[in-house]
Amino acid sequence: METLKLTVEYDGTNYAGWQRQPNHPTIQAAIEQAFARITQRRVTVIAAGRTDAGVHALGQVVSARVTHSLPAEIWRRALNGLLPPDIAVHHVEQVPETFHARYSARSKVYEYRILNRPTRSALSRHRLWHVPKPLDLAAIEEAASCFVGTWDFSSFEGSRTSNRNPWCTVTRCDLTWAPPYLSLTVEADRFLKHMVRAMVGTLVEVGDGKRSPQAIRRILAQKDRRAAGKTAPPHGLYLVSVSYDALTSHRQPKDIHLRGVS
Amino acid sequence: METLKLTVEYDGTNYAGWQRQPNHPTIQAAIEQAFARITQRRVTVIAAGRTDAGVHALGQVVSARVTHSLPAEIWRRALNGLLPPDIAVHHVEQVPETFHARYSARSKVYEYRILNRPTRSALSRHRLWHVPKPLDLAAIEEAASCFVGTWDFSSFEGSRTSNRNPWCTVTRCDLTWAPPYLSLTVEADRFLKHMVRAMVGTLVEVGDGKRSPQAIRRILAQKDRRAAGKTAPPHGLYLVSVSYDALTSHRQPKDIHLRGVS
Repeated sequence: METLKLTVEYDGTNYAGWQRQPNHPTIQAAIEQAFARITQRRVTVIAAGRTDAGVHALGQVVSARVTHSLPAEIWRRALNGLLPPDIAVHHVEQVPETFHARYSARSKVYEYRILNRPTRSALSRHRLWHVPKPLDLAAIEEAASCFVGTWDFSSFEGSRTSNRNPWCTVTRCDLTWAPPYLSLTVEADRFLKHMVRAMVGTLVEVGDGKRSPQAIRRILAQKDRRAAGKTAPPHGLYLVSVSYDALTSHRQPKDIHLRGVS
Repeated sequence: METLKLTVEYDGTNYAGWQRQPNHPTIQAAIEQAFARITQRRVTVIAAGRTDAGVHALGQVVSARVTHSLPAEIWRRALNGLLPPDIAVHHVEQVPETFHARYSARSKVYEYRILNRPTRSALSRHRLWHVPKPLDLAAIEEAASCFVGTWDFSSFEGSRTSNRNPWCTVTRCDLTWAPPYLSLTVEADRFLKHMVRAMVGTLVEVGDGKRSPQAIRRILAQKDRRAAGKTAPPHGLYLVSVSYDALTSHRQPKDIHLRGVS
C-alpha cells in the first residue's frame, strides 16, 4: 500500500460538492472513479475541505491509499487523462501512510471573490458573486479584522450540522480591492459548514450600511446563526490552499475539549 | 427611429458564434430576441466583429435601430434583465442614425490567451488554450512583431470565405507573459475569418521551434493558407474593444480598391 497526496483544482459548478452521494455527480466520486480505472480496485479518497455544491478549489488537498506503486508523475498524468475537464490534478506526492488530508491539515485558506459594480459579468458568472450596490470598503475591512482570533463561530455555522466543536482560530481575514473586484482571504485552522459564506454575507451587509463593523464581535458572542447575515452564494468561494506540518508524522484528530479552551 | 450603440460582454462557449443561423443558439439571435421582447417588434442588430463559435467578447460593439425611445440606462437594464446570464450589456448609448457597428469601426482589438504549463486548468478550460510544451517567448515576440504593417493576410484566412479583400493593417501585435499565462494582443483595422487564430497557431509553432521567426514574412508573401500553421482553438480568443471616430458621422463601407493600395 502507498499513500498519495494530491493537489487538485476544480470548477464546482457542475457538482453537488465534494462528498460522494447517490445520484449526484461529486468531485470525490469523480476522483475515486479515475483511481478505480487505473488500479482496478475501489479506492476511497479524503479531502482537506469538504466543499459544498458550486464551490471551487484552486488547491484542494486529497489523500488516497492505493495498492499500486507508480511514479508520482505517472499518477498525475494518468489521473488527468481520466478525470473530466473540470477537475485537474496539479501535483502528486508519495507521503507517509499516517498522512490524512483532513486530520493532518494545520490550516486552510479560502478566498471569496465579489464583483462590485452595477452590471453583472457574463464570463465570470460562475466565478464571483455579483453585488451591484457600492460597498463601504473601510467598514468591511474593519469588520473583517474582528474575525481574527479564536472564537466560537456558531453564529456563522450553517444549519443542519452536528458539529459539536464550534471553535475556530482565524489567523487571517484580509480584504483585497482591485476595482471592480473585491476579494476576502480567510485562513483558519478549521472551518464550520458555510462559515466563510456566512462571514462574507455578513460583511457585505456591513459594507452596505445595514450593520456596523462593531456588530461582528456582538454576533460572535450571540452564538446564534440568526444573529449573522445571509449566506453568500457558493460560486464566489475557492479553497485556495492547505498547510501541513512537514510530511513525516500524522497529527491526531483535533481534540474538542482542548481546542475549546485554546 | 433611434439608433443604439451597445457594448457587450459574452461567454461564447454555448453559442454557435455571433451570426444568426437556424437551429443553433447565437449571440445575435439572443440579443435580437431581448430587443423584440421590449419593443414587441422585430429588431436586427449588427456587430462590429462576427465572432466564431466558442469565441468570447469583453467589449463587442453592437448597433440596433429601434422604434422605441427610452433612456440609455433603461435600455441597459431591460436588456440585461432579459438576456441569458452568459451575455451582459455594459453600456448603451444613443448614436446618430448613420452609426453602423461594423462599417463605422476604425479598428478592433482581439486578445488570445494561452496557458503554458504542463497541467491543464479546470477553472479556465473554456477561457484559454492550454499549450503544455514550454515556448520560446523571445522567438514568438520577434515573430509577432513581423505582423505589424499592411499585408495581404490570405495565408492567415480560414477557408470557405468569399472575402475578396485580403488586406489588413495590423497596428499592434504584442505579447504579454505573466507565467504561466501568455497573451497576444492584436489590433487591426479589419480581420479576416480565423485570422487571429491562424496567427496564434503559427506563433505557437514558432515558440515550439517548428518554425523560425523569420518565416512569418515568407508565409505572408505566399498568400496561401497551407503555408501558415494550424488554427488555434476558439476558446482562447476575446474581442476586447472596438474603436470609432467621434460618433457624429458615418464612415462609408471601406472601399476594396482603395484599401488594397493603402
